Amino acid sequence: MALPKIGILGGGQLGRMLLQAAIDLDFEIDCLDPDPTASCHTLANKFVVGSFKDFETVYQFGKDKDLVTIEIEHVNIDALEQLEKEGVNVFPQPHLLRMIQDKRLQKTFFKENGFPTADFRLTENQAELMNHTDFFPAFHKLGKGGYDGKGVQLIAHTDDISKGFDAPGLLEKAIDFEKELAVIVARNPKGEIKSFPTVEMVFHPIQNLVEFLVSPAEISSKIEEKAQKIAIDLIAKMELVGVLAVEMFLTKEGEVLINEIAPRPHNSGHQTIRGNATSQYEQHLRAIANLPLGDTSAELFSGMVNILGSEGFEGPAKYIGLEECLAIEGVYPFLYGKKITKPFRKMGHVTILGHSREDIVNKANVVKEKLKVESGKWKVEN
Amino acid sequence: MALPKIGILGGGQLGRMLLQAAIDLDFEIDCLDPDPTASCHTLANKFVVGSFKDFETVYQFGKDKDLVTIEIEHVNIDALEQLEKEGVNVFPQPHLLRMIQDKRLQKTFFKENGFPTADFRLTENQAELMNHTDFFPAFHKLGKGGYDGKGVQLIAHTDDISKGFDAPGLLEKAIDFEKELAVIVARNPKGEIKSFPTVEMVFHPIQNLVEFLVSPAEISSKIEEKAQKIAIDLIAKMELVGVLAVEMFLTKEGEVLINEIAPRPHNSGHQTIRGNATSQYEQHLRAIANLPLGDTSAELFSGMVNILGSEGFEGPAKYIGLEECLAIEGVYPFLYGKKITKPFRKMGHVTILGHSREDIVNKANVVKEKLKVESGKWKVEN
Repeated sequence: MALPKIGILGGGQLGRMLLQAAIDLDFEIDCLDPDPTASCHTLANKFVVGSFKDFETVYQFGKDKDLVTIEIEHVNIDALEQLEKEGVNVFPQPHLLRMIQDKRLQKTFFKENGFPTADFRLTENQAELMNHTDFFPAFHKLGKGGYDGKGVQLIAHTDDISKGFDAPGLLEKAIDFEKELAVIVARNPKGEIKSFPTVEMVFHPIQNLVEFLVSPAEISSKIEEKAQKIAIDLIAKMELVGVLAVEMFLTKEGEVLINEIAPRPHNSGHQTIRGNATSQYEQHLRAIANLPLGDTSAELFSGMVNILGSEGFEGPAKYIGLEECLAIEGVYPFLYGKKITKPFRKMGHVTILGHSREDIVNKANVVKEKLKVESGKWKVEN
Repeated sequence: MALPKIGILGGGQLGRMLLQAAIDLDFEIDCLDPDPTASCHTLANKFVVGSFKDFETVYQFGKDKDLVTIEIEHVNIDALEQLEKEGVNVFPQPHLLRMIQDKRLQKTFFKENGFPTADFRLTENQAELMNHTDFFPAFHKLGKGGYDGKGVQLIAHTDDISKGFDAPGLLEKAIDFEKELAVIVARNPKGEIKSFPTVEMVFHPIQNLVEFLVSPAEISSKIEEKAQKIAIDLIAKMELVGVLAVEMFLTKEGEVLINEIAPRPHNSGHQTIRGNATSQYEQHLRAIANLPLGDTSAELFSGMVNILGSEGFEGPAKYIGLEECLAIEGVYPFLYGKKITKPFRKMGHVTILGHSREDIVNKANVVKEKLKVESGKWKVEN
């Protein structure tokens, strides 16, 4: 097998970390992104400015590649299918991207193939919600186009129906969950499958927002086995090539339900860069290039805190507290090279390593308190 | 402290690994190298083709930078001194590069400051060697310009004198050493110092050539303390900013003697990329940017095997056995992106991780047997 010439649709932070991992084996990788200042623009072998949603742009970008992959799933799939027909390897496979792009198809796939997931009903428009008052409280989710919390509305009562989407979507039973878990799993074309240890999102006790991630999750070995089996069986059933992130709920009754999946390296796996023997980024490259998958074991506990643009600041990013964080043993900031900060924009993340869960939680709390992204000149305090 | 705009003199593999590490904190780094296809050419923010030995080229390259560093020490020092005078930070400092470039000054520095090193005598030309027959067997070393084993001749008898250099050099007593050790140590402008665990070169029992490296070295805690103290005291005495590699001999009598030093990331520290919490590359960047130094601890044993061009092949590199190596747990090849192989050219290295020294040695032997660089099209076997 020749090492393939790769094209990535998208040039954001996930692409950036793929490019960093690609240096080890000297993969030649081009990126396509509409933003000329995207995270990958100085690192890609060739950085092409253009829309990954446009058929012709994607087709032209892909046709001289051996292999095309993605770092964002909202791309032009018709073009990927055309490239696939013409002999370009496209991983993850376009028909799987089509299914994942549409939450209605995704949920129906889980149900038809016996994968546990919250109960749901398909809806065609807002008015139809009136027929499902027996199903409330439920989340109304837009079938296509939702992203990062957008396209989801809680419908608790009839009064909330006006918040629902007047487009094809689904109503999903609200789950009273104990924990939110994630498993990242990879598969190569030979069918080799390897998964990373299950991780856990830690919520703020009052605000009920994800605060940080800890690996491994604090769960019984029985729950760990359940979560691992779901992820491994799912990637095997899908026959997906690449990395698949499986987000799950652990219910108060000890059930593990699939929430959503992403066919690419994922926010819940950033800490694998230092925390695990092989990172999710290296694993994705190994998988799509049909190389043996790497060891996913970890010697230490790890954690991950997102670095978000602080509220009230918009403009050239200024990192406050970076030097203080660098001085803490086992605390490793990673910045995405975005010049402009906006409230809640993902500007980077911090990986935390330690010898106990408590150590991770303590360091995560310090990082959350110290590290801020404000606006001003790029500056590290002395 | 503002994060500095950095220029690196040299664009080879050490530069490549610095650039890879620099992605985490989004350092902006340009490289200068005479070879337009050098390892860094696709990764640097700006890759400038030109000689790092030429005053004007180095001066022009450096004058718009906040900070200039090196990945090779044979550079134009006059230009670096001029830049330093004009307010550019140059780390390691030019006067230290001048001292290290000349083995005569280097050895004299060790001696005058009480650092243990093999006995030596300065020589001005070949004829002078006749005055030192009482000192044989000894190595005759060229003062300036020696590199990677060049510029060194063993003078065992009067008959060998004709092999000596007819230029300023030194005669160094041949040491009957037990082991060859190395310590990589870093210092930032604030004076903070951190060292990596002592590593050991493992020699082939018959050929007496370095076969691979193992970390940590198999030495008593007393010897470990000696080696660490020498490296830490040396960088403190020199007040060097950046990473310093200290190569040492452990004699059969239990003495630790400095062999040579290199003021930059070094071949004996490649395995720190995965083997240690912070790599020598990240540490160099932290040191020169006056950031807190990172944790150097290791959770596992590690090893490093150089990937050299096989004898008898010259031309486009073809890697044999790469896929087999990737299939071994804890074996991580790293290629330098050099398109052309030549006999014994450093084309990459392999980092090995494991739970015991024996595990490292076994895997290193497999890698040495399987992985070859021959000439032909870039190809991974299936």
